[in-house]
Amino acid sequence: MTYEPRHMKWWGWGNEDAEFLADRHPNFWPYAKTVLGIESDQSAGREWKLETLQLPEACVDEPFRAKLRSFLSPAQITDHARERVVHAYGKGFRDLFRLRCGTVSGAPDLIVYPESERDVSLTLRAAAERDVIVIPFGGGSNISGCLERMDARRMSVSLDMRRMRRVLAVDKESFTARIESGIFGPDLEAQLCAFGMTLGHFPDSFLHSTLGGWIATRSAGMQSDKYGKIEDMVIALRMVTPHGVLETRVVPKSSNGIDVNHLCIGSEGTLGVISEATMRVHPLPEWRQVRGYLFPEFEAGIDALHECVRQECMPAMVRLNDPDKTALSLAFRPPGSPFSEIAGRLFKGYLKVKGFVAPRACLMLTAFEGNHERVAQLLQHVNRIYRSRGAVSLGANAGKSFESTKYDFPHIRDFLLDRDVTTDVSETSTVWSNILPLYQGTIAAMCARIRESGVSPWAGCHVSHTYQSGASVYFTFGFRQQPGCEMEQYLRVKRAAQQSFIDHGATLSHHHAVGTEHLPWLCADISPLGVQTVAAIKRELDPGNIMNPGRLQPSSNPFQQWSALGPGPESLATVRTQTAARNH
Amino acid sequence: MTYEPRHMKWWGWGNEDAEFLADRHPNFWPYAKTVLGIESDQSAGREWKLETLQLPEACVDEPFRAKLRSFLSPAQITDHARERVVHAYGKGFRDLFRLRCGTVSGAPDLIVYPESERDVSLTLRAAAERDVIVIPFGGGSNISGCLERMDARRMSVSLDMRRMRRVLAVDKESFTARIESGIFGPDLEAQLCAFGMTLGHFPDSFLHSTLGGWIATRSAGMQSDKYGKIEDMVIALRMVTPHGVLETRVVPKSSNGIDVNHLCIGSEGTLGVISEATMRVHPLPEWRQVRGYLFPEFEAGIDALHECVRQECMPAMVRLNDPDKTALSLAFRPPGSPFSEIAGRLFKGYLKVKGFVAPRACLMLTAFEGNHERVAQLLQHVNRIYRSRGAVSLGANAGKSFESTKYDFPHIRDFLLDRDVTTDVSETSTVWSNILPLYQGTIAAMCARIRESGVSPWAGCHVSHTYQSGASVYFTFGFRQQPGCEMEQYLRVKRAAQQSFIDHGATLSHHHAVGTEHLPWLCADISPLGVQTVAAIKRELDPGNIMNPGRLQPSSNPFQQWSALGPGPESLATVRTQTAARNH
Repeated sequence: MTYEPRHMKWWGWGNEDAEFLADRHPNFWPYAKTVLGIESDQSAGREWKLETLQLPEACVDEPFRAKLRSFLSPAQITDHARERVVHAYGKGFRDLFRLRCGTVSGAPDLIVYPESERDVSLTLRAAAERDVIVIPFGGGSNISGCLERMDARRMSVSLDMRRMRRVLAVDKESFTARIESGIFGPDLEAQLCAFGMTLGHFPDSFLHSTLGGWIATRSAGMQSDKYGKIEDMVIALRMVTPHGVLETRVVPKSSNGIDVNHLCIGSEGTLGVISEATMRVHPLPEWRQVRGYLFPEFEAGIDALHECVRQECMPAMVRLNDPDKTALSLAFRPPGSPFSEIAGRLFKGYLKVKGFVAPRACLMLTAFEGNHERVAQLLQHVNRIYRSRGAVSLGANAGKSFESTKYDFPHIRDFLLDRDVTTDVSETSTVWSNILPLYQGTIAAMCARIRESGVSPWAGCHVSHTYQSGASVYFTFGFRQQPGCEMEQYLRVKRAAQQSFIDHGATLSHHHAVGTEHLPWLCADISPLGVQTVAAIKRELDPGNIMNPGRLQPSSNPFQQWSALGPGPESLATVRTQTAARNH
Repeated sequence: MTYEPRHMKWWGWGNEDAEFLADRHPNFWPYAKTVLGIESDQSAGREWKLETLQLPEACVDEPFRAKLRSFLSPAQITDHARERVVHAYGKGFRDLFRLRCGTVSGAPDLIVYPESERDVSLTLRAAAERDVIVIPFGGGSNISGCLERMDARRMSVSLDMRRMRRVLAVDKESFTARIESGIFGPDLEAQLCAFGMTLGHFPDSFLHSTLGGWIATRSAGMQSDKYGKIEDMVIALRMVTPHGVLETRVVPKSSNGIDVNHLCIGSEGTLGVISEATMRVHPLPEWRQVRGYLFPEFEAGIDALHECVRQECMPAMVRLNDPDKTALSLAFRPPGSPFSEIAGRLFKGYLKVKGFVAPRACLMLTAFEGNHERVAQLLQHVNRIYRSRGAVSLGANAGKSFESTKYDFPHIRDFLLDRDVTTDVSETSTVWSNILPLYQGTIAAMCARIRESGVSPWAGCHVSHTYQSGASVYFTFGFRQQPGCEMEQYLRVKRAAQQSFIDHGATLSHHHAVGTEHLPWLCADISPLGVQTVAAIKRELDPGNIMNPGRLQPSSNPFQQWSALGPGPESLATVRTQTAARNH
């Protein structure tokens, strides 16, 4: 049976039949209401109708369409309204909010489904001839604004890669697999599983993202501590550009000048289309377990992780929540989950004895995988370090609860958006010595900006993806919307978080890409000359500037451009009136 | 006491007072004579006199020199003949042979010693204004032809970075160190040692190479199995280009678009001058030991390494010699070295019992380092795997012998050149499934080409630098020179080796850079579009093409250019006559 990935619903995360099940997480909404200062239980209408969207008419260049028809089948080309809406944006707050307001100005005029590298090449050639924009599209789950068309004057095509989804070859001896780039996470793992292999890449977006998308955005999976980030897994690749095909060799390492793989990795669709990659793969682990631990405070948890790095005994995954994120995680747990029971009276008493102060305690999830003997050793080693920092083990049941819901978290945002609550994330990475200053500074900056609109802030953080020199630091924020100021509120907080990263010497993103959301900080991050050089690479490979134009190239006034990417109060007022009319 | 790196002797490897001590390695020359079919013990004169060199007059643009004098001290600028000769070439066969023939056409007109990034910037600016070529120079130990001027029409400056040698800052918590790029290996390790740290980068050229050189060429140290290649150690860097300074941030990992670090790493001096880098460093290992093992045959050794990778228990260093390289290694061992005794009669008898056939046995050197407990575990694990592949342990004494002579190996070439024997190396990397075909094919190709000139071939190989997907495969070759055809002989063999790499799907070099020696294969390695893109990066950062011009940019007829880089038979005849006259 072939895997048939579906498009996510246009107004939120996940397939149309998937959503946040409040019944399954009965403690969540009461928790959110308390921390966000919400009294009403009212939910905005959730019957999203495509017809209410202000979808600009598809403006298709007919010679271009005719050209496409000469080498593609009719089923590979569409300008159906639903398809155009689905391909308009990714899944950032700004994307969803605009859609919910009825704005789909970013929608492409046409969607093309290539089935081979040749289809991609010919489409790019035709597009270059007719000055048509091409935006490569994987799962559409990007949350940094990588997918929206930035130039409304030219026709735009979304190149949806999902039909290029074969594992082409596996070298079991060398642990490499040649894979088409449009493959989705679950499909990829299923096909590799048939060879007894895994890629080991499990980002939160796993169900709704593709290999090509991961490579183009420098994605990180939950188990990056063991398997590395996606850029560490790429051995060779092929990228179709308007100027021809760029190709590298299947060799473990080289000294062949500038590493051309790294010109393609992270190129965010601006240079060409990654058509396939040869990836490092791994034998399926004999054994895997996720465990939960509770640390007396955030600092102790960070110190424990740091010590694991020092002693070279990193587990396959770690995720250390700060106190607020811990509270959120506990509120998110399904009732009757083993942890909920443990977290009952007895356990609370135990923690009190151990000197834990509830609002400061921090949950750490830790995954171990590999062969039995080595995992047993590692587990013992890590337990020793955690205990020395005051941690108590919550056992494997806490981990099971995490495993069973790990891909559900993004659904929270839709649930909250329905209730006029904005939530989003900003994440970065920094060196160990800088984690606490960055953490404290960023939380303070975000909360201050949220309070400016007169609402209660919620901001939490988790540390994950460790390296010898540091780790990723991931912030989640939420607040009640002030009618008419929703976008302004969001921009204020998002900007504060990103600016704090840069001011603290950190990077604009650890694994969410630059897109439009982080573009104003690119010059500060890679230096103006770095940006110029990236532009030069683009000019060479894409002289007609047809590939995802506007990305990786900040304008002279990047913040103005950045702020402008949202509907004004008028369109919001319109949609509110419409929604009200629909609901009554 | 500050470390004062000296220039290597211009006619060979190492300082002027260092050379291959035949007395210390009494078995070596008899071994070489046997395998190479040499009867005479005669050595060409070894009194190398600078005056005999045909050094073109320095052609200095005086406005440029005047400009330099406005910001540099007199001690930072020189056009002294010895300095010009020392900076003319690296240490490849072709370099040394030409020098020994009296040809120094590659010599720069001026040498500049910057002491700060400002010195570098201003020098580049002055050079751009006056159309002067700038070739960054580290230790001068490159063997792929990265240092020779390729354009004799323009004035050329060698920018010798050795005075920029400070460790600027160490973050002991985050295991990072900010280091100036001109620092030599021993100096770097000494300065880091004061902080209890090591970089863990020990290439064969360690004594005579710099951090900047390592980064610009994508170097690999012997312990890369534990610490990675140099590109894995770079966290951030600053590169001064004619177009300004490119700078990246001190963060462990990022998703900030195309990774700008990787535009600088491997740029071989063609884009600018890496002035400093923030590197990943490590606590000094508690314990370190090198051990020797003997495998019944090459295949068994490769299989053992592969199994270590599979079981995730790679030692810090491995070096598996094929039978010929094993014989060479044994011949190279100092007399009275512990191993020589072991290798006596008794041991030979033991090996016979174990079924070892002398000409097929292979020496494997393996280093372990880290904390006691973990190393002990690892050692046990590796021993188990090695034994299961039929290895016998030669113990730690064999390793000591390696440790004491590990940086002496390059001196062999000078000793042999004195005796009209050509030796050089070619190395690559490939995936596990391809190591044996590549090995067999390349040895066969090299030997066939050597035999064409009517002499006996010697070709050996070692496998080292392992990765999950493969390893580096390193070939050494040698043969008697045919008077008048020395360069032709060399080119024939070198070309056969490199062509075999490419034909077998491997890369042009694993850690020796492209330079001039490997340039004809660059298009095949990174695809023509890759080469074009690298050229576009260069145009952006170095619009005047002053930085190491000609590198990373194959001409339309690369082999013609490649073959032309050697003195003709006439100049050889001249030098031979001169040498003969001097010796009598």
